[in-house]
Amino acid sequence: MSLISDISMSVDGFVAGPDADLDDPLGQGGEQLHEWIFGLASWRDPHGLEGGETSPDDDVVREGRSRTGAVIMGRRMYSGGSGPWEQDPNAEGWWGEQPPFETPVFVLTHHAREPKPMPNGHDFHFVTDGIEAALEQARAAAGAKDVLVAGGGEAIQQYLKAGLLDELQIHVAPVLLGDGVRLFESHVAEAPAGLECTSVIESPTGVAHLTYRAAA
Amino acid sequence: MSLISDISMSVDGFVAGPDADLDDPLGQGGEQLHEWIFGLASWRDPHGLEGGETSPDDDVVREGRSRTGAVIMGRRMYSGGSGPWEQDPNAEGWWGEQPPFETPVFVLTHHAREPKPMPNGHDFHFVTDGIEAALEQARAAAGAKDVLVAGGGEAIQQYLKAGLLDELQIHVAPVLLGDGVRLFESHVAEAPAGLECTSVIESPTGVAHLTYRAAA
Repeated sequence: MSLISDISMSVDGFVAGPDADLDDPLGQGGEQLHEWIFGLASWRDPHGLEGGETSPDDDVVREGRSRTGAVIMGRRMYSGGSGPWEQDPNAEGWWGEQPPFETPVFVLTHHAREPKPMPNGHDFHFVTDGIEAALEQARAAAGAKDVLVAGGGEAIQQYLKAGLLDELQIHVAPVLLGDGVRLFESHVAEAPAGLECTSVIESPTGVAHLTYRAAA
Repeated sequence: MSLISDISMSVDGFVAGPDADLDDPLGQGGEQLHEWIFGLASWRDPHGLEGGETSPDDDVVREGRSRTGAVIMGRRMYSGGSGPWEQDPNAEGWWGEQPPFETPVFVLTHHAREPKPMPNGHDFHFVTDGIEAALEQARAAAGAKDVLVAGGGEAIQQYLKAGLLDELQIHVAPVLLGDGVRLFESHVAEAPAGLECTSVIESPTGVAHLTYRAAA
């Protein structure tokens, strides 16, 4: 029952490009961070698509899916918006009636909202009382499995800075974005802190999958 | 005859800790970025020390040494100082009479200075007319070998931003520094730019050695 994060990052440290908006949710050039994933069998399956590649990339994604029992995400990852929900043009989220999440999802927000039930039973919950409360609810939902902080960068930074993150997985995509949102925008450690590198996987797509455990 | 860079970086993107000064040239916690290298045979040898480990880390360092025909570095990497040389308390550099460089070294500076001859013949040259001039002089000195931008982060950023860097090697050390000097502090790419990942090497020390070639 670890708290894990898992995000794609450019070589220069960005997890989204600049100028993200409703038409371009990943920002300028940001889709290049995720190109490695779209062809994979383990990505296509939960998105309702058949076929796809099996590869080291696919193994990484498949393993992540199998261990995840609940997902936490920031408000911006959910809808791209901020502020009151009635003023958010994307208040129902990016994914329509078929989100790719195979677990309950807990959205960090400052604006209260009833849970959003989903046909597959993996409802969205909106948590207004902070990251620790969201983690507590997610752990209860995850049972014996792990809780995944899916993003964005700010949510991962908050959990890392609070010392709550057990594992940090970074998929380094072979691109320089030049600008955008950094995974480590703020100072995530108060003082130098050691990590244990548990896995380095090179893939044919040029992505380096780096996994670290926070020192106990 | 490529222009290559080669630097150790923390997981959160820093190549030196904060508050670097003459007593602590790598900044607070910065020595942790380099711990992986000190025990290696290929590092000890040019520093006049015997013995040392052979390992994947050692292979990486040894290969870098064998291909390097000239070194370029920033003023701050050379002495930690700035401004006129006569006011720089470390004007003779960090390394005394036995620098670990096995080639001529070209130091980027705004302050003119005669070359500093070294007993081993690998003189230090001080270049005041910009990064392209330094590269031209270094190429002439390197012959058929590569030119290495050894650091610091700012010098590497300048060559990368100018489109002059052919290869970027990053040794990701398993530590979060939390603050300091970033490898990608400024926006090194004007627009998203693809890289080719040519090598990913995991080491027993938990360092991930990532090598990229800039797209032609």
